Amino acid sequence: MNQEQNEKSFAVSRQVKSRLPRYYRYLKELLDKGIFRISSGALAKMMGLTASQIRQDLNCFGGFGQQGYGYNVKFLFSQISEILGVNDNFRAVLIGMGNLGRAMAASNVFLSRGIDLVALFDKNPQIVGKSIAGKTVYDAKKLSSFLQENHVDIAVLTLTSSEAIAVSEELKGLGIKGIWNFTNVEIPSDETVSVMNVYLGDSLMQLCFDVRNREGKQHPDSTEV
Amino acid sequence: MNQEQNEKSFAVSRQVKSRLPRYYRYLKELLDKGIFRISSGALAKMMGLTASQIRQDLNCFGGFGQQGYGYNVKFLFSQISEILGVNDNFRAVLIGMGNLGRAMAASNVFLSRGIDLVALFDKNPQIVGKSIAGKTVYDAKKLSSFLQENHVDIAVLTLTSSEAIAVSEELKGLGIKGIWNFTNVEIPSDETVSVMNVYLGDSLMQLCFDVRNREGKQHPDSTEV
Repeated sequence: MNQEQNEKSFAVSRQVKSRLPRYYRYLKELLDKGIFRISSGALAKMMGLTASQIRQDLNCFGGFGQQGYGYNVKFLFSQISEILGVNDNFRAVLIGMGNLGRAMAASNVFLSRGIDLVALFDKNPQIVGKSIAGKTVYDAKKLSSFLQENHVDIAVLTLTSSEAIAVSEELKGLGIKGIWNFTNVEIPSDETVSVMNVYLGDSLMQLCFDVRNREGKQHPDSTEV
Repeated sequence: MNQEQNEKSFAVSRQVKSRLPRYYRYLKELLDKGIFRISSGALAKMMGLTASQIRQDLNCFGGFGQQGYGYNVKFLFSQISEILGVNDNFRAVLIGMGNLGRAMAASNVFLSRGIDLVALFDKNPQIVGKSIAGKTVYDAKKLSSFLQENHVDIAVLTLTSSEAIAVSEELKGLGIKGIWNFTNVEIPSDETVSVMNVYLGDSLMQLCFDVRNREGKQHPDSTEV
């Protein structure tokens, strides 16, 4: 990605940014199926969007489509991967090995996005030293020294809400640039770290809202979570 | 909620709808702290929004704030709970008792939103019959008959992606009105069922995007997941 494109990506609206991972998924699916070329119309149909919205979104990143040819899926996928940092070899640690932590460690959510999950941490002596999904669980007391000795970009918080603030404060100044937060405590982004707060319950409540108001609606949009 | 308010709630924009669960969380926090009255300015500061946005959002539901008094937190919370269906006694089943299913069953995500998790299902004979978080796991073969015999509103899909479509088809016509889908397969909403597709990986990618583009940004918004 050259400097010009890089500067463009800063100007992307939050809406477009939030749709990029979905483009990433759909383009990956096309590649997996051996489809290397697609029109904005066909992509739009697949994704339940309009062709014009697709063109507008993708134009934000330099307009990769060609009149009469459509999009080169492989190229578009590689560009979006680049924009999303899939090729940046980000390294992550997972803190809190309860049920959700175990689920995350065992899933391919990191690997499939080019992220190396380098270590697991927990404070429970009964879990420390054990192996989960092929990785050893370290003592949470060693988190700071581990981060001082190893390059880590992202910390995933799957610990209890009561520990969230203290641990997120500890992470600052240790090189962590991103926090993926699954606790119920909203951690604000600041000048040293970007935070993505995930509230699973919020999407459940949106679903309840849709169920409750079904009769008055045709096709509630289900994809903005 | 009377008919007039109910009709109003249909007209709520997707943006406002998506913010409601966050209002719910913040208002609950205020109540837990014994704060029963708050100005739009103070609520705005807490939530990182503008007072005008707060007033605009809440006006969609009938403008509960009073000039010079602010919002009655308890009343506002009860109204938003009502709108979100928290008091509707929705009943849910969880299908797929792998790591994520176990994490969900053990969490308070259902109970704290007034939803009764009535049964767990899995197809693995080694798990069927066992108790998870105090609930018995039923054989997935009995899902249809269970739904015919019991009133269930919401099905939570924590099974593998390859089973997602078949199970979601099976659920239709059995009274399920909402699907909370954690598989990687995008299930569309239709005239019989509302679907909330949750892609955990999408928020991870948005975080990577933020981390990658940090230098050019001040405070990326972290709350829209």
